[in-house]
Amino acid sequence: MRAVPVLFAITVLTWPQPGAAQGWTPPTDTQRCPSKWGSTDERGSGNHMKPETVLRAVRLIRTGEVFELGRVLKADMPFSLGRRFEMEMKRTNMNTGSNRRGSNEEIVFAELGQVGTQFDGFTHQTIGDSLYNCVKLNDVATRGGFTKLGIQNVGSLITRGVLIDVAALKGVEMLPDTYPITVDDLQRALQRQKLALQPGDAVIINTGWGRLWDTDGARYLKTNPGLTTAAAEWLVKQDPMLIGTDNGPVGVTPDPDRNLSNPVHQIALVVNGIHLLENLRLDEIAGKQVYEFALVVQPLKIQGATGSTVAPIAVR
Amino acid sequence: MRAVPVLFAITVLTWPQPGAAQGWTPPTDTQRCPSKWGSTDERGSGNHMKPETVLRAVRLIRTGEVFELGRVLKADMPFSLGRRFEMEMKRTNMNTGSNRRGSNEEIVFAELGQVGTQFDGFTHQTIGDSLYNCVKLNDVATRGGFTKLGIQNVGSLITRGVLIDVAALKGVEMLPDTYPITVDDLQRALQRQKLALQPGDAVIINTGWGRLWDTDGARYLKTNPGLTTAAAEWLVKQDPMLIGTDNGPVGVTPDPDRNLSNPVHQIALVVNGIHLLENLRLDEIAGKQVYEFALVVQPLKIQGATGSTVAPIAVR
Amino acid sequence: MRAVPVLFAITVLTWPQPGAAQGWTPPTDTQRCPSKWGSTDERGSGNHMKPETVLRAVRLIRTGEVFELGRVLKADMPFSLGRRFEMEMKRTNMNTGSNRRGSNEEIVFAELGQVGTQFDGFTHQTIGDSLYNCVKLNDVATRGGFTKLGIQNVGSLITRGVLIDVAALKGVEMLPDTYPITVDDLQRALQRQKLALQPGDAVIINTGWGRLWDTDGARYLKTNPGLTTAAAEWLVKQDPMLIGTDNGPVGVTPDPDRNLSNPVHQIALVVNGIHLLENLRLDEIAGKQVYEFALVVQPLKIQGATGSTVAPIAVR
Amino acid sequence: MRAVPVLFAITVLTWPQPGAAQGWTPPTDTQRCPSKWGSTDERGSGNHMKPETVLRAVRLIRTGEVFELGRVLKADMPFSLGRRFEMEMKRTNMNTGSNRRGSNEEIVFAELGQVGTQFDGFTHQTIGDSLYNCVKLNDVATRGGFTKLGIQNVGSLITRGVLIDVAALKGVEMLPDTYPITVDDLQRALQRQKLALQPGDAVIINTGWGRLWDTDGARYLKTNPGLTTAAAEWLVKQDPMLIGTDNGPVGVTPDPDRNLSNPVHQIALVVNGIHLLENLRLDEIAGKQVYEFALVVQPLKIQGATGSTVAPIAVR
Repeated sequence: MRAVPVLFAITVLTWPQPGAAQGWTPPTDTQRCPSKWGSTDERGSGNHMKPETVLRAVRLIRTGEVFELGRVLKADMPFSLGRRFEMEMKRTNMNTGSNRRGSNEEIVFAELGQVGTQFDGFTHQTIGDSLYNCVKLNDVATRGGFTKLGIQNVGSLITRGVLIDVAALKGVEMLPDTYPITVDDLQRALQRQKLALQPGDAVIINTGWGRLWDTDGARYLKTNPGLTTAAAEWLVKQDPMLIGTDNGPVGVTPDPDRNLSNPVHQIALVVNGIHLLENLRLDEIAGKQVYEFALVVQPLKIQGATGSTVAPIAVR
Repeated sequence: MRAVPVLFAITVLTWPQPGAAQGWTPPTDTQRCPSKWGSTDERGSGNHMKPETVLRAVRLIRTGEVFELGRVLKADMPFSLGRRFEMEMKRTNMNTGSNRRGSNEEIVFAELGQVGTQFDGFTHQTIGDSLYNCVKLNDVATRGGFTKLGIQNVGSLITRGVLIDVAALKGVEMLPDTYPITVDDLQRALQRQKLALQPGDAVIINTGWGRLWDTDGARYLKTNPGLTTAAAEWLVKQDPMLIGTDNGPVGVTPDPDRNLSNPVHQIALVVNGIHLLENLRLDEIAGKQVYEFALVVQPLKIQGATGSTVAPIAVR
Repeated sequence: MRAVPVLFAITVLTWPQPGAAQGWTPPTDTQRCPSKWGSTDERGSGNHMKPETVLRAVRLIRTGEVFELGRVLKADMPFSLGRRFEMEMKRTNMNTGSNRRGSNEEIVFAELGQVGTQFDGFTHQTIGDSLYNCVKLNDVATRGGFTKLGIQNVGSLITRGVLIDVAALKGVEMLPDTYPITVDDLQRALQRQKLALQPGDAVIINTGWGRLWDTDGARYLKTNPGLTTAAAEWLVKQDPMLIGTDNGPVGVTPDPDRNLSNPVHQIALVVNGIHLLENLRLDEIAGKQVYEFALVVQPLKIQGATGSTVAPIAVR
Repeated sequence: MRAVPVLFAITVLTWPQPGAAQGWTPPTDTQRCPSKWGSTDERGSGNHMKPETVLRAVRLIRTGEVFELGRVLKADMPFSLGRRFEMEMKRTNMNTGSNRRGSNEEIVFAELGQVGTQFDGFTHQTIGDSLYNCVKLNDVATRGGFTKLGIQNVGSLITRGVLIDVAALKGVEMLPDTYPITVDDLQRALQRQKLALQPGDAVIINTGWGRLWDTDGARYLKTNPGLTTAAAEWLVKQDPMLIGTDNGPVGVTPDPDRNLSNPVHQIALVVNGIHLLENLRLDEIAGKQVYEFALVVQPLKIQGATGSTVAPIAVR
């Protein structure tokens, strides 16, 4: 376990005071439905996945370098409450045959869509009893998964990825524990990196928080720098294919409005049908200033699931 | 469930008689070690994964079309004996907060590296107590996984993919139940498709057997057309990054030499350190004659595991 | 697997025709609550478990013979839909130390309260959203179990057991597939056995259906002879501590009124707060005419669970 | 969480110094086999379970009082390394039918034979590769359990129970953290309680350590007062049906001979074929001086398992 030098440039960082309520209220079903993709749509931002999107991403590949953005999956990684990843090796089974073939395999018990580096589908979150596109929970939830909006429908995504390095903008390796990323932060970081977002992008935000993943899981889980509701609202207006970060909740935790529980998850998944990609390992691409790349992610096709544990990459 | 028209052109297909022993004997440790990649190598054919390999694959992408080669993961898909995929939805957890955020997730219990469409690592198979590069089982096997050769080390693979359509060569949609694919079959199929293999390729073999996945799981599992040991030996000499098929065992089942239990698994994984990719969905690319493409596969980074369930794609 | 001689004396057995609706309607909350044990009661028929109940049972023990009524738990026993019992041996862990101590253990994945021979608690069944004593499902159900009425509160039960052998009354080893046991059947069987029920008894009903457990699991699960709603209503009036049988549902399956789904479960558990004991092995005590005995059952103290897999005994 | 007054009368307690090696060496197979119960025996101390044993126990029941000795099973109870008890409620399944019957059940994932209050069978421990009666591990261990010596063969046990209250002998509520219980301690405690052991007894030892179960799980697991090898050797000579305690390991932890890893487990299970009963709740019977009673324990009939989680009782 290496020491992590963290420059807490706290004195120069200011942000809205907790308690300064931001007044976000979930939109009513009438306000948010039907989705802009149509009243029967189940794909949301996945609709951006088209041949031309792939070609746009592939054109960014010049050196063939691949950067792994996924975390190693193991029993002692950080977990949100009540989640786990348990693996037991099954005893070697020696098959009959003169070739003495032994077989090994392992049994895994996990909240498979919601542990490690993971990709969120639209059944993961609700506003009350209502999912994306106002699909009603009780109409589609069964003991064995959801009959609509399941993660198996998403498929592999390949699109232009843009890393917005907010930590670098602030001159720190890691943003402070409850730092709320603002619209201004996002815009200035893009300006600093001389990049503009395009519809269908995978927008990846570096907070530096991922440095705690292997070194201080308790702190990693307790709070985190992340998006304000205003920043999330601005981002979704840019029409991305997905929003990813190096923390679990994407939104700042706790939310500055203490009455709200991770509203950013609702803004992205429920209100706008935009996928999330969480617990990314971003230190390498941030360190090497890989700001624009082809993002490739392959959610497992788990029927009816809310998400998938994944191992995405950036390629340039 | 749609009807599957299968042309059983059995009369024109001939193959070596069962009992005509092919005499394959597992090489001794001395004969097969060290691996050609060096005595401490753990990556085997994964060593082909280099920036130029990625660029070679990417240059094949011209239209941006993506073909999903992964199966949907569900409790009633076909499984080898003793494997399963169980998923239970966890009751919606309604968080506190004025934004009425409900959270859904699922618990999965599965032989995660060895169910559905799946990617084999080198701890999956042994010859006696010996793994790839003569790593000894008892030195690296723990209750919670393997301390060497674990699947988390592989990373995403992007390489030139070549589909060898043996079914099409034979003029059938599906090869007969125990059809043994020969060296000649592979060579003539490549000739017919006007393609030559290159080192580092993902070699994907279409037997048509995958048509049974959704329609007759019992038959899918009972036997299968697949590679003979001779064909496997020829293929590994072509130095591929991986060998994939639309059945589970890759090798023909049962092996024509009834004393052998899936020797092709040993030839690929143990003797030569070449990854396998199983239970692929190939009907679409076979039907559209997508014979050359970029193959992208992202194994989950399960620490110490023998393999990973995956959702690979072909892109052209 | 031995042959099971089954005397199908069907011609002499007559029963109410299916479709001859029995008109059972679940009582309203007002009609059934509070329970006769009080409005805050969580123990129901478990309230019969008192020192004098134990002494009454113990006085029946004269020879010290113990009869095992529990089934062996294994992956291939009969299961209701969606239930399972999976066990994987964990690799032997060799501890450090000069004494070369190896440890073995196994991991189990099962609907533990509801597989094999099992004991039902009061959270297992509802009428609409209402449990025993009109506890509301949504007030007590959490992701990890129930905050009231959990099986951990029951404790071991020792009481007088009475076997009512309806199969023997009818002169068969096994009642027909959908035979509906009537009040008259129960009363005449008791008369034949010269026994009368007492409050607090464990009433065990032999249908002979258990003969199929090891020999024809599919038939065991498809239908079963069992109690009519009238017979169940009569039984609960006798004020037993529990009702047990050698089938899964206790009630006849399907119910003669095809609009009803296992109403006997509701009559016992929800309306009257009487425990059920299912999938018992009764062939031995039926064969030896052990009609009166001490019944001992020890539910596991699973916090918040709906039931417990058990291994009860009869002692005489 | 209530305060637990613990009288640490440490000054009056002396015991052999750690490092004063006790020289216990596992007997060779030749020295310990065949078992005194015969070379093919699989029941060991379970052979004591006979009708007269039951009658001897039942004669001790005078008041009918039942004392629960089992712990509540839950995810946050103390566990030995790598064990767990996870339970997830399955969403209520509303059955079709006019009677609105909802079904609840839960899925459990646990080392079921080795968590909570638990009963050890003879496959749980080895000396090298050898089990009780010199059955060889590799001859009987499969992926799904053991083909011999499985816990399903044990059955319910009813026998005379004797509580040896060593803590009371020492005038403390809880013995110190690594207190080694000697032969003299056991003999003097029995003398104080005016009781003598008989062959076939369930010998239950109160150390007071169980007071930590709910209050300080970390300390409960770290070390524990328990039997020395000499005390264990003396106890097994008394020919009991089982030995039980209010800690996990039964033996003192760590063993005074630091080269030994829980030799008491080997002495009981492997060398002598005597069952163990662990993590008992003894505060109530110790507090009420219930020293002689009928002990009833019903191991689940898990095929091929090493043990069973249980909920035993003392009845007097």
